[in-house]
Amino acid sequence: MSFEATVHAKAIQLDQLVLDMCAEAGSGHPTSALSLGHLVTVLMYHGMRWKPEDPTYPTSDRLVLSEGHAVPIIYAACADLGVRIGREGNQRPMTVADAKDLRRAESEIDGHPNPMEGFPFFDAATGSLGQGLSVAAGLGLAARRDDLDKRIWCIIGDGESREGQIWEAVDFLVDQRLANVTAIFNCNQYGQSDKVSAQQSPETIGKKLEAAGVMVFQIDGHDPRAIREAIEKVQKVDRVCAIVARTVKGWGAPSIQGGGWHGKPATGEKLRQAKDELGTRKISLTSSLTAAEAPRIPAPKPHASKQFVAREAIGFSQAMKDHDFASTLATGRFATRRAYGLALRTLGQANPDVWALDADVKNSTFAEWFANDRTLAPRYAECRIAEQNMISVAAGLAAAGKIPFASTFAKFLTRGYDQIEMALNSGANIKLVGSHAGISLASDGPSQMALPDVAWFRSLSTMTDHRGNPGCYILQPSDAYAAYALTLVMAEYEGMCYMRTFRPEVEFLYNDRTVFNLGKFEVLNEGRDLLIVSAGYMVHECNKAISLLDLQGIDATLVDLYSIPFDTDALLDLANRNGGNILVVEDNYGAAMGSAVADACTDSGDAFTLHQMHVRRIPKSARTEEEILRMCGLHASQIAARAAKIVGVGV
Amino acid sequence: MSFEATVHAKAIQLDQLVLDMCAEAGSGHPTSALSLGHLVTVLMYHGMRWKPEDPTYPTSDRLVLSEGHAVPIIYAACADLGVRIGREGNQRPMTVADAKDLRRAESEIDGHPNPMEGFPFFDAATGSLGQGLSVAAGLGLAARRDDLDKRIWCIIGDGESREGQIWEAVDFLVDQRLANVTAIFNCNQYGQSDKVSAQQSPETIGKKLEAAGVMVFQIDGHDPRAIREAIEKVQKVDRVCAIVARTVKGWGAPSIQGGGWHGKPATGEKLRQAKDELGTRKISLTSSLTAAEAPRIPAPKPHASKQFVAREAIGFSQAMKDHDFASTLATGRFATRRAYGLALRTLGQANPDVWALDADVKNSTFAEWFANDRTLAPRYAECRIAEQNMISVAAGLAAAGKIPFASTFAKFLTRGYDQIEMALNSGANIKLVGSHAGISLASDGPSQMALPDVAWFRSLSTMTDHRGNPGCYILQPSDAYAAYALTLVMAEYEGMCYMRTFRPEVEFLYNDRTVFNLGKFEVLNEGRDLLIVSAGYMVHECNKAISLLDLQGIDATLVDLYSIPFDTDALLDLANRNGGNILVVEDNYGAAMGSAVADACTDSGDAFTLHQMHVRRIPKSARTEEEILRMCGLHASQIAARAAKIVGVGV
Repeated sequence: MSFEATVHAKAIQLDQLVLDMCAEAGSGHPTSALSLGHLVTVLMYHGMRWKPEDPTYPTSDRLVLSEGHAVPIIYAACADLGVRIGREGNQRPMTVADAKDLRRAESEIDGHPNPMEGFPFFDAATGSLGQGLSVAAGLGLAARRDDLDKRIWCIIGDGESREGQIWEAVDFLVDQRLANVTAIFNCNQYGQSDKVSAQQSPETIGKKLEAAGVMVFQIDGHDPRAIREAIEKVQKVDRVCAIVARTVKGWGAPSIQGGGWHGKPATGEKLRQAKDELGTRKISLTSSLTAAEAPRIPAPKPHASKQFVAREAIGFSQAMKDHDFASTLATGRFATRRAYGLALRTLGQANPDVWALDADVKNSTFAEWFANDRTLAPRYAECRIAEQNMISVAAGLAAAGKIPFASTFAKFLTRGYDQIEMALNSGANIKLVGSHAGISLASDGPSQMALPDVAWFRSLSTMTDHRGNPGCYILQPSDAYAAYALTLVMAEYEGMCYMRTFRPEVEFLYNDRTVFNLGKFEVLNEGRDLLIVSAGYMVHECNKAISLLDLQGIDATLVDLYSIPFDTDALLDLANRNGGNILVVEDNYGAAMGSAVADACTDSGDAFTLHQMHVRRIPKSARTEEEILRMCGLHASQIAARAAKIVGVGV
Repeated sequence: MSFEATVHAKAIQLDQLVLDMCAEAGSGHPTSALSLGHLVTVLMYHGMRWKPEDPTYPTSDRLVLSEGHAVPIIYAACADLGVRIGREGNQRPMTVADAKDLRRAESEIDGHPNPMEGFPFFDAATGSLGQGLSVAAGLGLAARRDDLDKRIWCIIGDGESREGQIWEAVDFLVDQRLANVTAIFNCNQYGQSDKVSAQQSPETIGKKLEAAGVMVFQIDGHDPRAIREAIEKVQKVDRVCAIVARTVKGWGAPSIQGGGWHGKPATGEKLRQAKDELGTRKISLTSSLTAAEAPRIPAPKPHASKQFVAREAIGFSQAMKDHDFASTLATGRFATRRAYGLALRTLGQANPDVWALDADVKNSTFAEWFANDRTLAPRYAECRIAEQNMISVAAGLAAAGKIPFASTFAKFLTRGYDQIEMALNSGANIKLVGSHAGISLASDGPSQMALPDVAWFRSLSTMTDHRGNPGCYILQPSDAYAAYALTLVMAEYEGMCYMRTFRPEVEFLYNDRTVFNLGKFEVLNEGRDLLIVSAGYMVHECNKAISLLDLQGIDATLVDLYSIPFDTDALLDLANRNGGNILVVEDNYGAAMGSAVADACTDSGDAFTLHQMHVRRIPKSARTEEEILRMCGLHASQIAARAAKIVGVGV
């Protein structure tokens, strides 16, 4: 059989299985899948260099399905090829029976790509649109750095390419000259609720790509030869390339084409009709009823893995001295964001898997101390002002085994919350660092202040990830020693962490011997009247409040609750030793740390008096930290007044 | 004096004031501001049709400063022109003294554009980059609909144009043929930490705009005549136009040009030097020491405002009958998302200020019942798969006095959280509707499920907006009557609301006479042993649990807590009448409703037994609601078992 006939026969076989799978599941996106039948067949059976029995082999090409809802076509191919699936202890070649378990609760064959549920063919969970090309860029960066001769293919929907993140990723690919990443735009002309805009036509997508400096191959996405030629060409060119493919949504089955069939499976008579239409098409295209030829999948290059060993990182004081900060060390003050930069550089020097990413504020987050180190620069990715892309690139790096630290202002990380959640679903071992958190940056005003951030990340800390750990640890170092140590702790831990750093220079509270651990806290002052709980910058304000209270004869305990989640029993124990009186002080909106303590209190069943001080208005600019603290009712004097009221003094 | 000399003289005067202002404030972004000196002078003194004494006059041109950090140049012009500033009761023409109060706590002259602090020249708070063009698009849409002959100018930084949202906005402008919005790209070549990428060079920005169908004018942004010509041309062409201006960061003051001066004011000797350099430049460019000529600001067209009066909207049953759903009404079941669509259409017919926006899922959110109504279609904006742009367009519409309802899957709204917070800072009266919230959509899996959303919006509910109301109300209707009524309630209320709707068809719990109010809840079953609190879809599961408990002789109270914040006293009162036992059940991650109840409990100082059931793992696909509920431990039987354990039965 000719190449064309082989591809048509196989594509139609997969298409028919897709229809069956979606009918079994009662949902799915069969028509999007059918638009990819030929592209996926040529790619997975004739184009990609990979091993179905070992899809994660280091030099294997990878496929990121950005338009995750089209996944049934990939499942169909994987079932046909016997691709290895399953969680540890239950790994096996995929079968057609597996495919028909699509979307079952106990099945690995999830509604959208979901590697952590036992489908390692994929590197990342997708389905929230527009993120795949950035993930592919991260995989491409890692492969280039590791000198792995592999290609990352990424399939993107036309409607999906309206997402700005796609264009952030395109700029990033061109900036980084990542010729090992190839985007394939699947232009099937239909979105979910309507035809796609003319702004997402194959012509316009092509023009936009060319304007951005990408070499474009426009093809008919159902022409096997054209697809193969385009694939061969991009493999030869040392430039960022993209394939723009015109396809038909519901190809081969006219009865389910056009609008109205986006998320709907054909069942019963409609299913029979659609499969018959495909069958008829197969006869006309293959001029034969014989089965397709066996696939000839190109093999990946043999790979001998190199193991890097991380050295132990030096401590904060030593790092300060090594980096010409001995005199600064002696001043006893250093901003937590600077300590982060120092730790990042130390880490980079100790561990070759550590990467840093930043979004044009590396001189504010101090990621620049990593970026500007000549030996570390190759592991720094400047992501420019495009936070969504940065997060998904980090997820791609993590999928390739790297430990990426992504930083920007904590406020601007919000731009990537959807990407962060998808990274969590992907099991990505990423570290997020948000600088200028809370209100202490003062002068720039609310557009630069992270205020609901703790609440959002705390939500992730209330559930467990696929490894059984909290979905995220939130870390708020109060001094440079803590920031430095916690950065090292993050690197050791496998899972997502979010660290808030702060703008102001602050006094040292700790030393090199203080041990910081996820889930722990530090007691800074032991009293008996009241437990004050704070974190980050506000610990210093609470420290001042403790002194004011002392003058009033009130003996307060101060806890630096640098981690959420935390050891609730130990904290409540302390509260009990302070008359059950708790005051939580934080520099962000509520539903955050104070609320976490409220959860702990009510969970314990014991009675506590809990008061929460947090930002309760939209802040504005102020020239000094003192002014903004007063504006938000969080000045030391205000904290002390509240504390005194709680213990019944000075009311 | 010639036009050029007049502009140079004025621009330099403003530039010098900018340097003084930033020196006074001790921060600011003077060099970005100086790159805009000529553009802003030509625009505000010779181009825009507006009235400094009444900047919000309906037909006045508007200026959105997307690169908010460059705001000192606008302040300088406003001080020079005596633009009206100030909150109600303190409105006055701005002075140079006002300008020098930049970033003071008590000043209206905030660090970034901040209309709600008393600077109505701006429509939107900016400073988190990439959002301005979308806001401008919303203003442009409203102006076109209201037949107001005005233009919306939007200044965007070159580094900022890396944000994907800018390109979402460009596609939207072209889709909507919004020729009354003009983007001006300020290409000063420097970002914060580095030179901008070649991907953001004026050439490449120009090519990208042309690829997207925009007519581009490339100019020297310090050439007064070139600027004026470009402004005149875009005013004549009935196409979407953009001006790409090459500028110099720190123009006129070589001593502060180049990298390292992004967020830094010149002070002391450096300030004197920079001002001197500008002074010298002024002499060479104006060949004269005389002051600049008086500005000739084109006046806006006279405007006679038309007042539309909203009619009272009909009730749910009547709306169902009017829209041919009488037989569906009789089934006693209707999804909350459908009820939202119905209410939206009713609202649109009753109130000409109501708009609807959606992001290619209008057939899932049921915004299509608005969009497909011929009389309402002109007030529907299809935003395609670009949620960031959708939210900021809504903020622009709100700034123009409209009441926009923006809907998509609750999960995908996450893409716009940064934009939502900026809209909150802008005082935008927007209504957000997230469908398919929680886990009840089952089959599509976690990439489509909103899980930390309640925590994030709840954070906004813990503070107050500029009107003194909660920053956001979170609404979770449990049936169609509630969804319908709460949609009408949202329209009546001036402020931000977030409504979660759910995929499944659910039974009616209420009727047309039930009254729903922000901050309230409904008691569905009155017992005495235990208070079960839930909302949205989970109310139905709790209802089943109540029946199971009844069989065990447990008499539980069920509250439908459809609003956050809520009447805490009333809720705790109910808890006290139920032995102080509370069980909160929700279909999302924690830090959410249960945590809000924990806050209320601990705040009261009384002792309660509070148990929280929420999603504690990353869900995956399941084919049925029953399966996914069991997977997440939230099935009626699991709720009943937990409840029984709390009251000490069946342990």
